[in-house]
Amino acid sequence: MTASLAERVRAGDRRALAKAITLVESTREADRAEARELLDTLLPAPTASLRVGLSGAPGAGKSSVIEALGTHAVEAGHRLAVLAVDPSSKRSGGSILGDKTRMADLGRRPEVFIRPSPSGGTLGGVARRTREAILLCEAAGFDLVMVETVGVGQSEVAVADLVDLFLLVVAPAGGDELQGIKRGIMELADLIVVNKADGDLLPAANRAAADLRRAVHLLRPKREGWEVEVLLASAAEGTGIVEVWDHLTAGAERLRAAGAFEPARADQAVSWMWSEVREGLLDAFLADPAVQAELAASERQIRAGERSPTSAAQALLARVRRS
Amino acid sequence: MTASLAERVRAGDRRALAKAITLVESTREADRAEARELLDTLLPAPTASLRVGLSGAPGAGKSSVIEALGTHAVEAGHRLAVLAVDPSSKRSGGSILGDKTRMADLGRRPEVFIRPSPSGGTLGGVARRTREAILLCEAAGFDLVMVETVGVGQSEVAVADLVDLFLLVVAPAGGDELQGIKRGIMELADLIVVNKADGDLLPAANRAAADLRRAVHLLRPKREGWEVEVLLASAAEGTGIVEVWDHLTAGAERLRAAGAFEPARADQAVSWMWSEVREGLLDAFLADPAVQAELAASERQIRAGERSPTSAAQALLARVRRS
Repeated sequence: MTASLAERVRAGDRRALAKAITLVESTREADRAEARELLDTLLPAPTASLRVGLSGAPGAGKSSVIEALGTHAVEAGHRLAVLAVDPSSKRSGGSILGDKTRMADLGRRPEVFIRPSPSGGTLGGVARRTREAILLCEAAGFDLVMVETVGVGQSEVAVADLVDLFLLVVAPAGGDELQGIKRGIMELADLIVVNKADGDLLPAANRAAADLRRAVHLLRPKREGWEVEVLLASAAEGTGIVEVWDHLTAGAERLRAAGAFEPARADQAVSWMWSEVREGLLDAFLADPAVQAELAASERQIRAGERSPTSAAQALLARVRRS
Repeated sequence: MTASLAERVRAGDRRALAKAITLVESTREADRAEARELLDTLLPAPTASLRVGLSGAPGAGKSSVIEALGTHAVEAGHRLAVLAVDPSSKRSGGSILGDKTRMADLGRRPEVFIRPSPSGGTLGGVARRTREAILLCEAAGFDLVMVETVGVGQSEVAVADLVDLFLLVVAPAGGDELQGIKRGIMELADLIVVNKADGDLLPAANRAAADLRRAVHLLRPKREGWEVEVLLASAAEGTGIVEVWDHLTAGAERLRAAGAFEPARADQAVSWMWSEVREGLLDAFLADPAVQAELAASERQIRAGERSPTSAAQALLARVRRS
């Protein structure tokens, strides 16, 4: 069954792809085993793809930017998959991309596959499912994968580790109004887009771009020889979108030509294995009855400053080793 | 022996304190066990202490700022311990604070204890030893602990998790010259000090301060109700140092009064226990012969894109469970 599903995914069958993603999203152990088998069958995925992460505060217009960029990309001949990461969502379907009508025109195109955020779970779990969904989309022939995230805490960091390039979308605002860019996110960005740069908002967009340019200049570059640009765009009016696309693809080509692309993906994959190993080890630790019996008391002693964290950790580890 | 060492540390005996820190720095298992016992004996440490992290690029004048701030603090009645975190150092004694003459005047005072960076090791190991050294210094009656770090990668993040307040020291420079503030560090800072704001460098210091103020304004605040200030100082001329000290202590008092101080330390300690647990689990995993036999092949397959990271991780975890 896995073999035939793999074959259908590889043939670009969208229903099979949807089913395969549901499989990797499942938490049932039997489904997980099947999902692993499916992935190993489909690997290696085609490597000519481009993975782009997109983030920004609510209201910045991420979906509109994806719709405008995606439409342009599809017209340039690409096949596009859009995925979402939203660990804050506890509802099935997620709070972003859940309403597909937000990308209605894009979603109706045969060259486009849109998948809402999987519901809930830990950030690690959501990130793993998204990573596997990326591989499935690529196996199905989608050569451009966009991952949208609305940040809670560390979700942008996780997404930055899943993609080739990371794009931050901000709304026009200057000085104090801009305050609120999530800590850490500015430093993940390979490209910043000030959206809604049209009409009355154009002066504010220009001010925001100037402030952002000054701020990114203070930071050490994320990549050797890569300048983080701040571009103006209006997804609503369609202006600036071609420039964003050209900048992204030219940057990707430059990285690929410099041989930086594949090693970065290989590093991401290996670090992903390690995060899976660490998670698995911790799960087994937490499932140990000896740990469950002592954990609360240990944490209480540590909080009260009565016991050193090292000493408590060593005692718990010793109990697990004995059991 | 541990009991008598603990007693001497508690009495403020500096040689006993130095010996105790050497014990927590040791990697010998017997020493580690003794160190844990010692720490548990000395806990809970007095909680009236203030822990300040200090970072900045080479040449920013971190040591001069520590010397000036420390001298002022000691004259205000504090007992000061200065520790260093430098995971980049492979040489014994470390590359920062290794040359105590850099803080010669400060180091001669009876109220001051200066400890160079432990040599080498992983960041996790260095951070653990520093954390334990902080507790020992507090047990010995040092109520002000400064932790100096010269950042390589994530060492500032680790130090920010060891201290109450984090101070970033930068040298005067404007615009492009400032570029090079390490990624992530600006967002850890509770206070930024532009040092060397004297003589010819005063205009450049003012420009740097203005740029930094604009940049921190773009970021979401690190703490509720805490404004990250950018202050000018000259450690060489002694100007601005009192203002930095007043700002730090007033901020600490405000956090303490708001009840934010102790819960933050308790959270740090618990998260420290978890990082020790994770490290211990990973060490045991890496020591497993089955893992050692298969790890290289797994990583190679993952790098080549032939195997999914999840599948490889699950296979390794299953081998460990069986062995």
